[in-house]
Amino acid sequence: MSPEHVKITVTHILYADLHGIDSHGCSMMHHYHRSYADGRLSMTPKIEVIRETKATALIDGGGGLGHVPADKAMRLAIAKCRSSGIGAVAVRNSGHFGAAGAYTSMAAQEGFIGMATTSTHAPALVPTFGAEALLGTNPIAFAAPAVRNQIFSLDMATSTVPIGRLTDEWRKGNAIPVGWAMNRKCRPIRNGRAATKHRMVTPLGMDQKTGGHKGYGLAAMVEILSAILPGVTRSRKRGGGDGRAGHFFLALDPRQFSDEGEFEEDLDDMVDMLHACRRADPNRPVLVAGDPEHAKAEERERSGIPLSKSVFEDIRSVARASGVAFLLEGEA
Amino acid sequence: MSPEHVKITVTHILYADLHGIDSHGCSMMHHYHRSYADGRLSMTPKIEVIRETKATALIDGGGGLGHVPADKAMRLAIAKCRSSGIGAVAVRNSGHFGAAGAYTSMAAQEGFIGMATTSTHAPALVPTFGAEALLGTNPIAFAAPAVRNQIFSLDMATSTVPIGRLTDEWRKGNAIPVGWAMNRKCRPIRNGRAATKHRMVTPLGMDQKTGGHKGYGLAAMVEILSAILPGVTRSRKRGGGDGRAGHFFLALDPRQFSDEGEFEEDLDDMVDMLHACRRADPNRPVLVAGDPEHAKAEERERSGIPLSKSVFEDIRSVARASGVAFLLEGEA
Repeated sequence: MSPEHVKITVTHILYADLHGIDSHGCSMMHHYHRSYADGRLSMTPKIEVIRETKATALIDGGGGLGHVPADKAMRLAIAKCRSSGIGAVAVRNSGHFGAAGAYTSMAAQEGFIGMATTSTHAPALVPTFGAEALLGTNPIAFAAPAVRNQIFSLDMATSTVPIGRLTDEWRKGNAIPVGWAMNRKCRPIRNGRAATKHRMVTPLGMDQKTGGHKGYGLAAMVEILSAILPGVTRSRKRGGGDGRAGHFFLALDPRQFSDEGEFEEDLDDMVDMLHACRRADPNRPVLVAGDPEHAKAEERERSGIPLSKSVFEDIRSVARASGVAFLLEGEA
Repeated sequence: MSPEHVKITVTHILYADLHGIDSHGCSMMHHYHRSYADGRLSMTPKIEVIRETKATALIDGGGGLGHVPADKAMRLAIAKCRSSGIGAVAVRNSGHFGAAGAYTSMAAQEGFIGMATTSTHAPALVPTFGAEALLGTNPIAFAAPAVRNQIFSLDMATSTVPIGRLTDEWRKGNAIPVGWAMNRKCRPIRNGRAATKHRMVTPLGMDQKTGGHKGYGLAAMVEILSAILPGVTRSRKRGGGDGRAGHFFLALDPRQFSDEGEFEEDLDDMVDMLHACRRADPNRPVLVAGDPEHAKAEERERSGIPLSKSVFEDIRSVARASGVAFLLEGEA
């Protein structure tokens, strides 16, 4: 991978690890390595702008990891937003891009509203009334700038839980709650490791009675924006691009709707109002999207990023297989 | 109300009633009338474009109902999308606009992707870990054009259920499920009528364990787009515009990302794939967002829109209070 691509990729991997989104950071390294070893991932992708107008663009990711094309796409959306008030950029022929919030926070840091969605390489989400997984856990991220408070930053799978949570609970020795995952007979699975193998999770809201059809609808919306719009579905149909992902990015300038600073001030007021919400449990404050991640980032900036034994060993084996020095040696 | 405003308003009220979204159609008439009688609603609003760029605009709704400014805003977003590939229009100082899907379907019928969100006049959604309602049931609508299939049309409250469902279940004599609504002590309410009075519903996903923080995050995202962005929050703070709502509309042209017709073809494939999903119950097919509403519209186009006794009487009393003929007389 070129030094420039390394730098961008590491920045976004670190974003995930720093913000406590451990399932999307360096724990992915051995998956990436396996895809590379299997010849399914280019480390020298040609990333190209295929179509472009003043406010929109389509980027081809060249069959590599998603971080670099996603970074390029959000930068382009921000540039278009700066000149046109709004910018929308879609990416095809891409790969796993880490945490979606890494890209929306780029927009918010520049004073814009940011939105990002991604399709995934393999299905996991079971449609309402269905008995097989047909969509990905298709995340939505949305960020907006504040001043007194940290940026508002929502980053969520449209499934009840992302796949990574299933293994997490198993590692902690917990049974997973009924309603998170199922087997082919639509019976709930309680064992997180078995659930990870079955790869059949419920949409946000679970049953139809509790709104699962809405999570399923949101997952389909994400599929439309990040797979159908950039043409990922199309290239899959043509026999190429199996296991490829697509993304969608939007940047919007609040200054086209109100005077400089008004948006941020009003968002601060909303955040303050939510933080001051009467509590169900006096010891558990009401949070705002992004709070847990901001707190985790502050903590880890100070004390470092803890790596589990298994991630540590995974990275060591990637280093060995790649013939490069394992710089963390002795630090486990 | 001017004949032009009547025509547009009735079109969108009829959209809701025709598509089975009974809570957002003519059942709202007596609420509208009450607001008008109380002096909180103008029937002759001055609807103005306040700010405008090639791809964005801000509209002031003039303190009337939301249907006319929303219609104007989506038309403007579509026009901007036609020339710039994308258009985003926000609306402030507006009112209830009926079903959000009425506006996104306008975009889809023109071959564009449409998105619409709205804030609401009064809070109902309780933040995760909270014990009071601070956000509206803030709906998101998203539509996209297909060819073989009906348009994809998602229209959902970001709460587990909209307020209207609580009364519906009570009218049907059903207890509402635990997890939909609560009282000030955060105990579940099972009586739909009592729940409607308390006006405290859970976000989509309910508890944090089952993803309720995501529904809460989505509701906050909708608040940012439809209340903070257009300045509804600001005018409320300045002491005016109490009970006013704001909206956000987006139109996006798939032809900026792929060749003419490719998007629709690929969306048709996705819809077909979802319809063909292996079923949990052989007698219950897997649906796609919009299917129930499209089916209802087909049925009601043929056989008419059934009105409940109470809605019928409500409309009669509005007609009487307004001194106009009640044209449905004898048809109940």
